Amino acid sequence: MADETATTGLLGFKPQLVVPGMNAEAAVQFYKAAFGAKEVRRVAHPKRKAEQELPLILSAELKIGSSFLLVSDRFDDAGEDGSAVASGGGILLRLEAEDVDAAMKKAVTAGAEIVGQVTEDEDGVHGKVRDPFGVVWAIAAVGKKCPEAEA
Amino acid sequence: MADETATTGLLGFKPQLVVPGMNAEAAVQFYKAAFGAKEVRRVAHPKRKAEQELPLILSAELKIGSSFLLVSDRFDDAGEDGSAVASGGGILLRLEAEDVDAAMKKAVTAGAEIVGQVTEDEDGVHGKVRDPFGVVWAIAAVGKKCPEAEA
Repeated sequence: MADETATTGLLGFKPQLVVPGMNAEAAVQFYKAAFGAKEVRRVAHPKRKAEQELPLILSAELKIGSSFLLVSDRFDDAGEDGSAVASGGGILLRLEAEDVDAAMKKAVTAGAEIVGQVTEDEDGVHGKVRDPFGVVWAIAAVGKKCPEAEA
Repeated sequence: MADETATTGLLGFKPQLVVPGMNAEAAVQFYKAAFGAKEVRRVAHPKRKAEQELPLILSAELKIGSSFLLVSDRFDDAGEDGSAVASGGGILLRLEAEDVDAAMKKAVTAGAEIVGQVTEDEDGVHGKVRDPFGVVWAIAAVGKKCPEAEA
C-alpha cells in the first residue's frame, strides 16, 4: 500500500447510473432516443446469464457527444450499494485507480466515509466511499473488467 | 429550431455538483485533498462579487485524472434548481448543446420532464430536464460562459 502522500494513480472517472427494477435496458434506449447516445460496450452479469432470460446489465457504456455514461442494473445482492446511491438519484462517480486501497485510504483521510469495503468480485476490485458532499465514488482497479458476455 | 430527427449538436457533458450552504470552496478543497484534483478554472458569480466578501462560486472546474468535475455553490435564487437536484445527491449532468431548444425538445419527446425552462442569465443559455431515471440534465449552450471574474 502506498503512503498517503504518494500518487494513488487516479486515471479518471465516469458517471454511473444505477437503475432499479431491471430498467437499465430502458435507460439505454432512452439515452439513445433523447441524446443520440451510442452504445460502445455492454457487459452482462456473468452469473445471471444462465439462470434468466434477460441478463442483468452489469455495465452498458454509452457515448454522448465526447462523454461517457455507464448504465447498470441494480443487483438484488447489492443492498449496500443500493442504499449508498439512494440519495444520489442513482448516480455515482466511478473512479479508476491503479491502487484502490491507497486511493480509498486517502479519500477517507480527507473526510470521506467508507460505504463499501474493498472487495473483488465479477466487477473487479472496487470499494466505495461517500464524500462529505453526498457524492458516492466507486473506486475501481484499472482494467479489471468482468469478462465480456454475449448480449 | 431544428426538427427532432436532426442532430442537436451535443458536444458532451460534465458532472456538476451543486453544493448547499456556501460550501463549494470546501468541496473544492476536499477534492484536492482526496483525489489530487487540479483546479483548472473558476468563475465567480458576477452579481455577488460587489456585495459579499466571499463570492459565490458559479463554477469551479476540477480535473481529476483525465476527467472533469464542476463544483458550484447553490444560489439562494435557484430554488427551482435546488429542488431539481435535491434527489440527486447534488449531482446533475451538464450537457453542452449547439441548439439548446432542439436538445430540450428531443429529450422531452423521449420522455424527459422539463424542470427548468430555457433561460439566458449570467450562466448563459440553459434549460433543465429530469429524465425518467431521476437524472437531472442541465442543457447549456456551447461556449456561453459567464465572464471570468477575479477570484
